[in-house]
Amino acid sequence: MNQHATIEKVLSLSKRRGFVYPSSEIYGGLANTWDFGPYGTQLKNNVRDFWWQTFIAKRDDMVGLDASIILNPKVWQASGHTASFADVMVEDTVNRKRFRADHLIEEFYEKKGKEIKVDGMTPEQLEEIIVTEKIKSPDGNLLGKPRRFNQLFETRIGILEDSKSQAFLRGEIAQGIFMNFKNVLDSVRVKIPFGIAQQGKAFRNEITMGKFIHRTLEFDLMEFEYFFNPDGVQWEELYAYWEKEMWEFALALGLNPDNLRWREHEEFERSHYSKMTKDIEYDFPFGFKEMFGLAYRTDFDLRNHMENSGKDLTYTDPKTNKKFIPHVIEPTFGHSRLIGILLFDAYTEEPVKDDVRTVLKLAPKLAPVKAAVFPLQKDDKLQELARRVHGRLKEAVTYVEYDNSGNIGKMYRRQDEIGTPLCVTVDYDSLENNTVTIRDRDSMKQDRVSIDALVPFVQEKIA
Amino acid sequence: MNQHATIEKVLSLSKRRGFVYPSSEIYGGLANTWDFGPYGTQLKNNVRDFWWQTFIAKRDDMVGLDASIILNPKVWQASGHTASFADVMVEDTVNRKRFRADHLIEEFYEKKGKEIKVDGMTPEQLEEIIVTEKIKSPDGNLLGKPRRFNQLFETRIGILEDSKSQAFLRGEIAQGIFMNFKNVLDSVRVKIPFGIAQQGKAFRNEITMGKFIHRTLEFDLMEFEYFFNPDGVQWEELYAYWEKEMWEFALALGLNPDNLRWREHEEFERSHYSKMTKDIEYDFPFGFKEMFGLAYRTDFDLRNHMENSGKDLTYTDPKTNKKFIPHVIEPTFGHSRLIGILLFDAYTEEPVKDDVRTVLKLAPKLAPVKAAVFPLQKDDKLQELARRVHGRLKEAVTYVEYDNSGNIGKMYRRQDEIGTPLCVTVDYDSLENNTVTIRDRDSMKQDRVSIDALVPFVQEKIA
Repeated sequence: MNQHATIEKVLSLSKRRGFVYPSSEIYGGLANTWDFGPYGTQLKNNVRDFWWQTFIAKRDDMVGLDASIILNPKVWQASGHTASFADVMVEDTVNRKRFRADHLIEEFYEKKGKEIKVDGMTPEQLEEIIVTEKIKSPDGNLLGKPRRFNQLFETRIGILEDSKSQAFLRGEIAQGIFMNFKNVLDSVRVKIPFGIAQQGKAFRNEITMGKFIHRTLEFDLMEFEYFFNPDGVQWEELYAYWEKEMWEFALALGLNPDNLRWREHEEFERSHYSKMTKDIEYDFPFGFKEMFGLAYRTDFDLRNHMENSGKDLTYTDPKTNKKFIPHVIEPTFGHSRLIGILLFDAYTEEPVKDDVRTVLKLAPKLAPVKAAVFPLQKDDKLQELARRVHGRLKEAVTYVEYDNSGNIGKMYRRQDEIGTPLCVTVDYDSLENNTVTIRDRDSMKQDRVSIDALVPFVQEKIA
Repeated sequence: MNQHATIEKVLSLSKRRGFVYPSSEIYGGLANTWDFGPYGTQLKNNVRDFWWQTFIAKRDDMVGLDASIILNPKVWQASGHTASFADVMVEDTVNRKRFRADHLIEEFYEKKGKEIKVDGMTPEQLEEIIVTEKIKSPDGNLLGKPRRFNQLFETRIGILEDSKSQAFLRGEIAQGIFMNFKNVLDSVRVKIPFGIAQQGKAFRNEITMGKFIHRTLEFDLMEFEYFFNPDGVQWEELYAYWEKEMWEFALALGLNPDNLRWREHEEFERSHYSKMTKDIEYDFPFGFKEMFGLAYRTDFDLRNHMENSGKDLTYTDPKTNKKFIPHVIEPTFGHSRLIGILLFDAYTEEPVKDDVRTVLKLAPKLAPVKAAVFPLQKDDKLQELARRVHGRLKEAVTYVEYDNSGNIGKMYRRQDEIGTPLCVTVDYDSLENNTVTIRDRDSMKQDRVSIDALVPFVQEKIA
């Protein structure tokens, strides 16, 4: 865990410096809803672009997709979401983890060697068993009252009150990919194994509080389904490949590996569609929590959609002419929650002289602002040259800020807090010899660089 | 109007070539819902990035934001959306345009010199007046039955059936900007005049059918609110400035100006918050329809939110120390609908020899694929070199495809249909003299270029 980064400190910096604001704040907010401010939005866009470059643009076996949030409700029936999101849930009264009541009870009996199915019982029936058998949560704590819990947000389509039809906001983005599997096969030159990737919002009716942007009503995901022939490749092998790729991506984001770990899901916590799930977790002040997830969904989704829609979703191997339903491995990357993780991980407090500076040590390629240009003082000539330097740098680099508020200490402090890797100061020497001072965010070392060499100097540092 | 581009042809190409698919198609679709395929997604991302570069990254007076879709419901009450989206609507029975019944009736009376307010009457009362007075639509057609119509999608927050609270999916993205106006002022160095920009989904319960992706349940917007001091600048002047900027952006997208026009809204069709609205409309096969909109929202939103929330949303002029509520001008750019417009505008059929080729003449900077590399034949040596050329080009340019299906005519045809500006062919001469053939999409002219000069050649052509 990053010892500097308490929830209070990260939240305060996020708001003070324009990364994350509580949503609808002037109306008292809305539980588990946050908005991204200017720097948060830039950071989020940079993460999105880096992910897209890494997993789609640079690869030959991946294509993008952008499917709807509101799908035909039959999709969620076939995928098992309306049923399994309507399960009876029970909460650990201490750590507030939620579990399917039927799974806990069945596992309790399994350990005693009895095969008893309780799926489909009412909350009251399940509660009776829990009380009678004194069943505890997997962490050994007392369980609360079982309740019906549906995480899918409902809405209704149609304009007339008497003819509206029920629909759902997507609870995961994967289904849009399965819906379009056949369309992609028919319109784009792809050959198995290949992936279909997507980035966008999903919605879950969340009650967990106090986790900043880690658990929210709406959240951004980046995800792909990687389709393969289970007769052509061992799933374990492909799974191991994507484990490696995901870990490397986490490191490429600049995250401290000491704060990361892989954890395999227990059987009782795996989603209904998954045969194997592992998460990369991040060590927050509130414990290790899921950052990325890797699930082997088998052919569960395509098979169910085939059966329910009556449409052929098989793939024909071009060499053998054999038809099969592809299996998928699904790497999921929390996008909005990753912004919280990057802030927690980058937050640093360092003693400088007799003070402490706060600095966001973000990977330069992700930093919302790459460089800031200051005139040393509010002098017309300095400002004029600084403006010119700013204009030139801005042509080549996104984003470059200009600050002429005059107090160099305050300007450095502000840029440190938003994680700007480089600060360029135009001083009186600049007027004489056409050079500027470049100060490095992390080392605080200052270099003297010719204005003509500034663009490549900055570009190299932020690559 | 682009004479080549019928709805049927554009829809067929969109699906066949992976731009746009009907959503949830295997379950019979979902009215007014479409998904973007691989090429549509790339085109959409390119438009988003070009817009962001133009209006946010390159300017010094604009910052980005990314607010939630589900806001506190009080936001929509204060903004007037719950009230004005619940109005009684009446439809022109011929062209299906919808109007507020009360507005039509009041205007009917106004023309007769009578000031009669009917706002708040029931649909039945309004119908009686329409029938008795024989009121027609503004286009002179018969009106249908007035009905209550709420375009905001509703949902409910909370996990327990007995304690859920009503909420709405945003019907416009602007409110997230007004919500965060104060937060942005307090956390980022901005000075009026400045803008806050956003890109994201909005949702409207639409019944209009058959407009491809022009009217959909969910759609992407790119928008900003430009805040100014009405005592410091004439709104008409600023409005004219943004009119010019929007028009230039439309041309920079490569759209044919003959298919574009400005149209000022009549008073009866203006939104409740706007004092002046003009649209840039595109000439579809189904008539001129809104592409971009420019509204002068005055201080309507900030003032209402101030009154309803009790929070101070004024701005203090740093020079005069005078407080005021900023006014806004709002340029809105339909994002998803722009993809449809780009397809309609770029769709071209050209006679070649004794055949007709279909080609998407997209602006090269927006084209989903910039270049494709082919070996002339399925020859090992040609394929090996073509792969190397592809790898090298792909390092520098996003996206570059590789196609070794062997039939050069078919490969050109496919790239023409997805709008790829350049096709690179590796042939037997390439093995001898290290040059390749580059064929231009529009002129079909072929150039011979050294492989070493390929990257800068392509980069220049697609800039």
